[in-house]
Amino acid sequence: MLMRTIALLVLLSLTGWASVVLAEDGYDLWLRYRPLPAEWVAAYRPKVTELIPGAHSPTLDLTRAELSRGLGGLLGAAVPLASHPSQDGSLIVGTAESAPLIAELQLGLERAGSAGYVIRSLVYQGHHVIVIAANKDIGVLYGAFHFLRLLQTHQPLENLAILSAPRIQRRILDHWDNLDRTVERGYAGESIWDWHKLPDYLDPRYTDYARACASLGINGTVPTNVNASAISLTPAYLRKLAALADLFRPYGLRVYLTARFSAPLEIGGLKTADPLDAGVRAWWRAKTDEIYALIPDFGGFLVKANSEGQPGPQDYSRTHADGANMLADAVGRHGGIVMWRAFVYSQQQPDDRAKQAADEFVPLDGKFRDNVILQVKNGPIDFQPREPFHPLFGAMPHTPMMLEVQITKEYLGFATHLVYLAPLFEETLRSDTYARGQGSTVAKVIDGELFGGATASKAVGSGPPFAHSLTGIAGVANVGSDRNWTGSHFDQANWYAFGRLAWDPTLSSRDIAEEWVRMTFSNDSAFVAPVVAMMMRSREAAVDYMTPLGLHHQMARDTHYGPGPWVSGGPRADWTSVYFNRADADGIGFDRTATGSNALAQYAPQVAAQFADLTKTPETLLLWFHHVPWDYKLQSGRTLWDELVIHYTQGVLTVNDMRHIWADHSFMVDPERAAQVSTFLAIQEREARWWRDASIAYFETFSHRPLPAGYAPPEHNLQFYEALCFPYAPGIAPRPSATCQ
Amino acid sequence: MLMRTIALLVLLSLTGWASVVLAEDGYDLWLRYRPLPAEWVAAYRPKVTELIPGAHSPTLDLTRAELSRGLGGLLGAAVPLASHPSQDGSLIVGTAESAPLIAELQLGLERAGSAGYVIRSLVYQGHHVIVIAANKDIGVLYGAFHFLRLLQTHQPLENLAILSAPRIQRRILDHWDNLDRTVERGYAGESIWDWHKLPDYLDPRYTDYARACASLGINGTVPTNVNASAISLTPAYLRKLAALADLFRPYGLRVYLTARFSAPLEIGGLKTADPLDAGVRAWWRAKTDEIYALIPDFGGFLVKANSEGQPGPQDYSRTHADGANMLADAVGRHGGIVMWRAFVYSQQQPDDRAKQAADEFVPLDGKFRDNVILQVKNGPIDFQPREPFHPLFGAMPHTPMMLEVQITKEYLGFATHLVYLAPLFEETLRSDTYARGQGSTVAKVIDGELFGGATASKAVGSGPPFAHSLTGIAGVANVGSDRNWTGSHFDQANWYAFGRLAWDPTLSSRDIAEEWVRMTFSNDSAFVAPVVAMMMRSREAAVDYMTPLGLHHQMARDTHYGPGPWVSGGPRADWTSVYFNRADADGIGFDRTATGSNALAQYAPQVAAQFADLTKTPETLLLWFHHVPWDYKLQSGRTLWDELVIHYTQGVLTVNDMRHIWADHSFMVDPERAAQVSTFLAIQEREARWWRDASIAYFETFSHRPLPAGYAPPEHNLQFYEALCFPYAPGIAPRPSATCQ
Repeated sequence: MLMRTIALLVLLSLTGWASVVLAEDGYDLWLRYRPLPAEWVAAYRPKVTELIPGAHSPTLDLTRAELSRGLGGLLGAAVPLASHPSQDGSLIVGTAESAPLIAELQLGLERAGSAGYVIRSLVYQGHHVIVIAANKDIGVLYGAFHFLRLLQTHQPLENLAILSAPRIQRRILDHWDNLDRTVERGYAGESIWDWHKLPDYLDPRYTDYARACASLGINGTVPTNVNASAISLTPAYLRKLAALADLFRPYGLRVYLTARFSAPLEIGGLKTADPLDAGVRAWWRAKTDEIYALIPDFGGFLVKANSEGQPGPQDYSRTHADGANMLADAVGRHGGIVMWRAFVYSQQQPDDRAKQAADEFVPLDGKFRDNVILQVKNGPIDFQPREPFHPLFGAMPHTPMMLEVQITKEYLGFATHLVYLAPLFEETLRSDTYARGQGSTVAKVIDGELFGGATASKAVGSGPPFAHSLTGIAGVANVGSDRNWTGSHFDQANWYAFGRLAWDPTLSSRDIAEEWVRMTFSNDSAFVAPVVAMMMRSREAAVDYMTPLGLHHQMARDTHYGPGPWVSGGPRADWTSVYFNRADADGIGFDRTATGSNALAQYAPQVAAQFADLTKTPETLLLWFHHVPWDYKLQSGRTLWDELVIHYTQGVLTVNDMRHIWADHSFMVDPERAAQVSTFLAIQEREARWWRDASIAYFETFSHRPLPAGYAPPEHNLQFYEALCFPYAPGIAPRPSATCQ
Repeated sequence: MLMRTIALLVLLSLTGWASVVLAEDGYDLWLRYRPLPAEWVAAYRPKVTELIPGAHSPTLDLTRAELSRGLGGLLGAAVPLASHPSQDGSLIVGTAESAPLIAELQLGLERAGSAGYVIRSLVYQGHHVIVIAANKDIGVLYGAFHFLRLLQTHQPLENLAILSAPRIQRRILDHWDNLDRTVERGYAGESIWDWHKLPDYLDPRYTDYARACASLGINGTVPTNVNASAISLTPAYLRKLAALADLFRPYGLRVYLTARFSAPLEIGGLKTADPLDAGVRAWWRAKTDEIYALIPDFGGFLVKANSEGQPGPQDYSRTHADGANMLADAVGRHGGIVMWRAFVYSQQQPDDRAKQAADEFVPLDGKFRDNVILQVKNGPIDFQPREPFHPLFGAMPHTPMMLEVQITKEYLGFATHLVYLAPLFEETLRSDTYARGQGSTVAKVIDGELFGGATASKAVGSGPPFAHSLTGIAGVANVGSDRNWTGSHFDQANWYAFGRLAWDPTLSSRDIAEEWVRMTFSNDSAFVAPVVAMMMRSREAAVDYMTPLGLHHQMARDTHYGPGPWVSGGPRADWTSVYFNRADADGIGFDRTATGSNALAQYAPQVAAQFADLTKTPETLLLWFHHVPWDYKLQSGRTLWDELVIHYTQGVLTVNDMRHIWADHSFMVDPERAAQVSTFLAIQEREARWWRDASIAYFETFSHRPLPAGYAPPEHNLQFYEALCFPYAPGIAPRPSATCQ
């Protein structure tokens, strides 16, 4: 059989099929397992001569299969299985509980917790072996992926002494996927969830999704949109969800659901959804019983309430705490949690939109059930290219709080812009809230370190697997049915980086980029170094060509595709650009100091003091906090207006640089991926120029100042840019309108 | 390099990658080119020893590449290129014009026309050679695909003397794809057309789409929905279309566009779309000039006007001929045509919907420009599981008429039901209109044979490539972004069969099925025979479990998912089921005889006479033409009611048979495809039972008769079936409603 396969492959190699074998369409993500260069195979082979997979369980069987697949692919030869280590190079895998061999070793597993693992080189019965061990099966799977990553990135296998455990307990992907396969703000094709064919048909892609999540330690998925449909709570859809849950369980991936607050009216036949109504409470209790009967490890609910038109407890003059606690009581009986989103702002509220979440929630600190966690976006507006950290971080010591970041690039050029987001995530995680003095970073808020006493079970490693330790982080997924999953090859890096930072928010974005490039494209340092450098510049480039110096929310209406600094009118002021840029003859920027909205007062005094002082505010956030005169001199000595133009221009130039870097190095990857990246970078450069030119054309109508010498004027006049219209830009469903005015 | 590739493949073969190499996800369609069994390689190798590809041109270069890919894959070794035949086994490819070698041979090319080809075994300068020759490059490409098909299906290569030319000139796929990537009545994922990234990014899938079309001889594509958006006619979208046209051109695939009749108002700034208005006429002339400047071989417009809410000339009290001719005048100056759909019925018209198209169009016979062709659905209602042929066929001798069939299974169970449609297409094509006496088949109407004098250029083979010979056939595509293109593996057969019948409507559905099974799954006769037999039974099974004995239009409202014989009310009577089934205490069926709507009077007298006589009407169409008493005795001697129940039941039983046939034989194909087919057949059986049970539960409220002995009652009561609701069933955008009543 083997010889027949080889013969077949030799035949294939002589034909066009070789190209199929070697084609790279991106489907394999960072789990490509392509054969390593001969020198690395020679180095690794003696270190991995046999696999001792230990006991059977659904998760351990997956672990064995992944190691066989990965090692077989990387080393070019199947690694034989054995029941007991008999030679140098044994790879021993398992838990202390299921493998006596591991139990007898002193591995320090007590520090690995329920999801962590150790990878250790040691001598066992005279043989040099490597052990991947954990307290629970899922830790073994995570350790196996870590071990494979070592080979994938050409790391030495000598003297391994790795202990790794997640710093955050709930590491979740939020899918804004509607039940009809459209994806709100999705730029990677339709939803991967084919609800219509569930529960019968389990697309092989679901398995690969779970593998990819597990390879990063992602342990939760919310497959439904926060703008929720109550239909997802009907019996038919719960059975569909249960089929996914069954498939995902051995990968350590729990399912959650978004809960539409008005579901008792829509599918329950009740007359109210008042969270204090006994009938409503009974309905949700019965509904959660129904869910847990199908999915015993159901994670809980994610809720967007009283925000952007969604129903919520305030419809009944109840508080967010009333609403969250009602659901928490229902799921809590089964060990479930409620993730309650803090992204709320009221149409009736004339105050600065940036302030409203904190205004709403800070008074509720301590009023939530233990199994409620508040889900807070990285910044106070909405996933902009740059925002200051959200003032809620550090402001509610008695309330568990999780970070929500957007992996899908709603405001960052969609899939065709190469923008590596880990620097943005890192910037938030490392922001200092000063809630308990210097060093009170957002990372320490969300990993439970800062307010440890406030959370139920904060210690890394304590408790059973999936203990309800209320620390968490959520990323709005960029995953779709596109063959490469994320709409572009480089957007895979953003899924990857989210997962890695969710496991360990102290990792550096640069290290993650390098890891990813090595696994995804090439280990050749002549490729890795320039491409990582390119990625590391990409987010600042996007800030520059879209919203430099603290500007925010300047995109086109509805579609969010391209620039729209002129956007005004419409249903609400805080959905316009002019609300946020406040450009006038005097200057530009949103005064959030005491003379303005005083939003900065929501931060700790040390932070507020810095932001209050125009000269101390980082220039990257200048126009977020201040309305600044056009002729105000920045640190460069140039005026604000000149610097604005220079930043816009620099953004375009950086993308042009990125194009050249790719053009010079992409010969080192396969032609299919090289070509797509190249085409997308060309789109990005054109659209970066569009952003620059349109923004300058608009703002110069206020500044009335010439462009700095040597800077080209916009290619077209303002009317040209204002007239552009893209009714079918992706990511909106239902569409506001199919025609342009 | 080659050795390195082999070494790599050997390495891969030792690892998990072998399974990747051999995985079959269906993407390759019928162009798989997997290595043939050794005995066939041995037989074919001496017959194909070298390839003489002749001259260079875009199409000939593609031909060479396809032959190299195909022969290399099938024979397991690259076939060397040569400039001149030097040995037995030379494969000589080209046109007489570009290859002197071919010009000197007597090949009978004068009968091949502009798109046909010859494949001939002959002796040239003492060598046994095979020649693939044509008058035009595209014919050579078609011939190359035919030649590869011979090897793919294990046909002998001795004494080849093939002459093939299309009997129908316009062989077109109509995509009901909206510009936002939703697909109306699409069940294979989102649209393959990523308009947002066009014209910059050309998805590799576009190339494979063009290859697949060319392999069948499909020579036209309408990428936009007949329910059209005027946006597709804006300059930005025309540039996107031009990028596709440039890619498709060497494959002989021309692009057409749907034209929204009211576009002059919506994007032209005009106050009217009256086809007789000079400004409107000028606007369309300018618009077509703009299109042809970008796409010199643009095919023309497909128009759905004054039908189901679409705008049209009747909005201005003009006729369909006025509307069609106005557009025909615009595109005619550039060689374009107008395909005007006859699928019209009026909300104001109380008469039988089945009659309205003929009522509307017969009086217009002879009133259309020469470059207008009327596009007529196979039956007078709407792509039902079975309909009689459309009365327009044969009824307009002075008007070119093309057949429209639906490849996507809107009314046939979506992608999860295995229904092979070629028997349905064949049934229509072989239907005898008696328009010029016996033998006046629909096939002869649409291939120009019957009314030859009426069409511009009917003779096969006359004229230049893409001559405007007005014969045509259109299939509503079932293609989407699903990895297997069509939502299921067996639905690929329907795309395939449409293309083959479009080339030659006299082919047999069984022969096409066998060809397809051999190319797609296996040449093993132990597999081919039962699977072809299964396919051949599948359409009658669907008729039986959905709409037996001439019933029609009995599906659920809007989604068309599942049964809905009780559907009534709503915006219009002829969108309901009760309008069509007319079930009452006396019987069931639509009286279309002289005592009823007299729709049969629209057929030729011989046909009408047969349908008028209850005893002569085929039982397959009984309830289409007659309201029949429940106790009426059919040929079996059983009552109508009993036969109805028996047919519903037989449909379910046949699907159960199909499941067993697949279960017994699918081990002969790869596990991935085997499993998906198996899962879908299980869905189909469950849904077939649902159709049966729900239909019986409804109709027994009228028949008040017991089920025949031994036939199980419906599993649930009627209320259960009526209450089922599937707001997110695929294929509808925008959705009528997201909640169930």
